[in-house]
Parts: sequence; C-alpha cells; structure tokens
Amino acid sequence: MADSLPSWAHGPAKTAIRDFVAAVTDTGGSDFVPIAERIAVFDNDGTLWCEQPVQVQVQFALHRAAEMAAADPTLKERQPFKAFLEHDMAAIHALGKQGLVEFAFAVHAGMTEEAFAATVREWFAKGRHPKFRRPFDKIVFQPQLELLDHLRANGFKVFIVSGGGVDFMRPFAEAVYGIPPEQVIGSSGKLRFDPVDGGPCQITKLAELDSFDDREVKPANIALHIGRRPILAFGNSDGDLAMLRYVRSGPGRRLALLIHHDDAEREVAYDREFRLSPLAEALDRADAFGIHVVSMKSDWARVFPDP
Amino acid sequence: MADSLPSWAHGPAKTAIRDFVAAVTDTGGSDFVPIAERIAVFDNDGTLWCEQPVQVQVQFALHRAAEMAAADPTLKERQPFKAFLEHDMAAIHALGKQGLVEFAFAVHAGMTEEAFAATVREWFAKGRHPKFRRPFDKIVFQPQLELLDHLRANGFKVFIVSGGGVDFMRPFAEAVYGIPPEQVIGSSGKLRFDPVDGGPCQITKLAELDSFDDREVKPANIALHIGRRPILAFGNSDGDLAMLRYVRSGPGRRLALLIHHDDAEREVAYDREFRLSPLAEALDRADAFGIHVVSMKSDWARVFPDP
Repeated sequence: MADSLPSWAHGPAKTAIRDFVAAVTDTGGSDFVPIAERIAVFDNDGTLWCEQPVQVQVQFALHRAAEMAAADPTLKERQPFKAFLEHDMAAIHALGKQGLVEFAFAVHAGMTEEAFAATVREWFAKGRHPKFRRPFDKIVFQPQLELLDHLRANGFKVFIVSGGGVDFMRPFAEAVYGIPPEQVIGSSGKLRFDPVDGGPCQITKLAELDSFDDREVKPANIALHIGRRPILAFGNSDGDLAMLRYVRSGPGRRLALLIHHDDAEREVAYDREFRLSPLAEALDRADAFGIHVVSMKSDWARVFPDP
Repeated sequence: MADSLPSWAHGPAKTAIRDFVAAVTDTGGSDFVPIAERIAVFDNDGTLWCEQPVQVQVQFALHRAAEMAAADPTLKERQPFKAFLEHDMAAIHALGKQGLVEFAFAVHAGMTEEAFAATVREWFAKGRHPKFRRPFDKIVFQPQLELLDHLRANGFKVFIVSGGGVDFMRPFAEAVYGIPPEQVIGSSGKLRFDPVDGGPCQITKLAELDSFDDREVKPANIALHIGRRPILAFGNSDGDLAMLRYVRSGPGRRLALLIHHDDAEREVAYDREFRLSPLAEALDRADAFGIHVVSMKSDWARVFPDP
C-alpha cells in the first residue's frame, strides 16, 4: 500500500494520525464516525504555512500601506503606518496579533468584496517570501498538504479556522489547500450591503473589526459556522488552545495536534518569544489536555514542497 | 427522460428553473458555471416550509415558555410570556420578526449547544403543526424538496439563509432537507466558550442576539459564511429582497425566485398583511429587479408530501 503521508517521518505523530483515521473510518469498529461528522479544523498561519518573520497577511498590509503613503505622504509620520513603512519589526511585533488584524482591516476599508479578492490574488501571484525567496504557495508545509489530502480521501471535510482575515485567505485557499471559501473561517470585519437600483448590489468592507478569531473565539466561531464539534484539530500556538481543547473534549475518539517549530535549520525555531502568536501555555499543558505535540524537526521528513 | 420536478406544474417558473440549470451546466455554453461556483441559497420559513399561522420556531418557543412558567408562575403575568402562554396571536404578531427571534434566544439562554440540539430534536419528533395536524417534516413544500435534489444532482451546493435561529434549524435540516449544519446560515446569539479543566469544554448559548439574519444582513452573512456570491436565490418575503437582489445583480447568468402564497385552498393566501414577515416591496418591484414570482396556486402541482 502506498504511503499517503510520505513527508511525515515514521514516529509517534504519524502513527497517531494513521491510527486515528483508521479507527474513525472502520465501519465495524467502536470508534466509527459517519462521514457527515468527520470534520477537521486547521489553523493557518504557522500550521499550514510559514508565519515568520511576520504572517503573510502582514506582508500584504505592508504593501497596501506603501500604496496609501504614496497617495498621501502625511501617513509616513503616523503610527502604525510609520512602523509598517519603515519595516520596523520591533514596533510591528509590539502591536500584537489583534493590532495587526485591525490594521489589515482598516487599510482595506471601502473596497467591495470582489475588488478586494482581485487585489489579494494579484498580490499573491507576484509576491515572494522575504526569507525563503519563494512564491507564497511554496512556503506551505508539504506534510500538511499530504495530511489534508489524506483526510479528504477518508471522507473528512476540512475547514481553516484562523486568526487571519477570512476574506484575505479565501482567494487563495482553494488553489493552495483545496479548501473552498465556504470552509474558511477567520477574523472578519463589518460589512455593508449597498443596494443600487439599476446597478450592481455590492458588499463593501468597513474598517471596524467584527470578530477577532483567536483563542476562545475560535470554538465560538466553529459553533457559529460549522454547527458541530469537529473530531480533529491542528494548531501551533496559544491562540489555538481553546479550539484544541474544545475538539479534544468531545465524546468519542478525537485527535488534537500542535506543531512545534523547533527546526532552525529548515524553517525557524521559535515558541514563547514570538509576540505575534506565542506558544507557551499550550506547550506546557499539552499532555494534561491530551494534545499531541508534533516536532517539525523530528516528525517531518521534509518541510516545504519543491520550489 | 424522467421529470425531476414532477410537483412543479408546466409553466413559466418550471421553464425558468430548467433553462437556468441547463445553461449553467452546459460545458460548451457561454453561461457555463464551474461546480465550485454553483451556490444556491434558500430562505427557510415560507420558502421551504409553511410559516403559518406563526413560524415553527415560534411554536417551539411557546413550548419552552410553558415549561418556564410551570417552574416560575410569576412569568404568567409578564410580557411577552403572557402573550405566548395565552396563545395571543395578535400580541405575538405585534412583536414582529426580530422581537420573536429575540424572545426565542432569551428563553434558551444558558443551554450548551449540544443540550439545545437534543431539545430541538425531541420537540421536533413529537410536535404537530396546529393547522395541518402533521409532523413538521410533513409541512415542507414537496416542489422545493424536488428542486433541492435537482440542484444537487447538477453540482450545486445548497445553503439555507434564514431569519430563523441557526442552531434551531441545524438539528433537523440534514434529515428534512439534506442540508448539513455547515450549510445553514441564520440568526445567531452570542456564545460563550467554557474551558473546564478535567471536564468537557462547552459552548453555551447567551441571551443576547448577535446577528438578526434578515433584509440587508442576509447578503452580509452570505459574504461572511460563504465568501462568494451565489448564482441562485429563492425567498418569499421582503426579508429576502436584499439577498435576491444581491444574487441577481452578479455577473453572468443568475436566477432569483420568490414564492407567492396565493393558495388559500391548499396552504394559506397571504402577503402584505402578515406582520411576522410581510411580502410587499419584493412583490411590487419583482419585475424591475428581474425576480421571478412563483405562484403557489398555479406553479405547484402539489404543495405537501404525502402525510
């Protein structure tokens, strides 16, 4: 039988995944789960792709801030524009994850949903990762692409549940991960519907953040968008802990996984000190909560796809 | 070729539906739409099932109000409990659709999502429609069940977008309509995540309404939950007009349909005067907005399934 997870090294993480999938799909077994209930949720930044030195959406917001400053030079002296324009990483990190998400929503206010999606697609196609010098669809994690395929081949429906902007992720999630827009959950801004007689009725993005999809908000947004408790969750930071615990503590067989970025050679080694999305409590309490810690260094035979 | 819509009478509505589905699935044609973009949205109350004399969820809330009054008799003198307990339809209608949704959320506050779903299922299995004396899964509209199947057989993904409570609809939508929980969008209340060390982490319903999914909120919630503009929409009231216009005014071939309850003999004849969900502006301006009006009396060969 061909190995559907060739980029996963033989070891406890790969075994846990294979055993779990085998158990919930075994029609005669005590852990069998009907297809309709095979829901898996994945964080995006740091779980499905590289989030260093800053999340991809922050790089997109940097680009937009530069465009805005070109049109209005007074922005260059205003914070947080100044920090973004000067690529002042210390100041950007100090904003924290919510501050960044708020900035990303504010700089794209006033765009229709279709115009924003087109802008994301155009930027995404041209952009390059600052460290790895690759297109962004080549800084995704190859083992995770295989895992997504393995789950779908076994009847799972896979959702993204990310702190990133939902309308930022949707324009590329289908092409990059095979995950359609309606299976992407994320932070969201308020929207306005404009009914135009004789013209196109549109949805316009407003500046105000509506839902910051992080920590305790993740399980609440899963309840709102999916309406049943997933049986598998995969994250990488304290922002995912509530989601991992929510999934893990449901009845029946469950699998909660946490990727630990401990691979300075192939990616970046970090956890507690990453101010934009620290991993501390989830790492310290993983055992107590029944969460499997996946080591990038030892559990992944490769990290990125071919460039 | 077998007729996949036998309960639709031969006429303009059936022709419009068949022509539309044929056009968007014709791989060589100019109106072809890829499967991933074949998204259809349906209102629920009055569109997929009977909403008279009051929406089914109101009947569920009546039941809950009676339970609460049995435990606390002082509620019998308080509004809106008094109106519900005395089945005072004039007073209930006067609350309006949002007032009813708020009441329905308030009386179920404090329940976990799983406990609430179990309560809905139990009530639904035992309940009978007050006029037609049938279980609620037999007051759905047979032509719509056939249309849902016809759309799915042609690659459509079908969503409910209703003013009703999202967590009220989900426990029966899969069995009754074949629509899974994650494809149900509706009004929603605020939720609280309770992480319990050593116990199950739960989502609890709070009393406060978060999103009243009616009128201009429907397109905004479609943008939030689905993330692309559907190509077919079906509604029955002014609460659906923004959604119908949003769908109809997108690029390419689109179909927007409005059921008109003009059949006093087989169901109920009503439109403008139904205070819980009037149909007036949408009927008056349907032609101007390119919306097809479906007559229950002449376009449906039958209304309900066999009892």
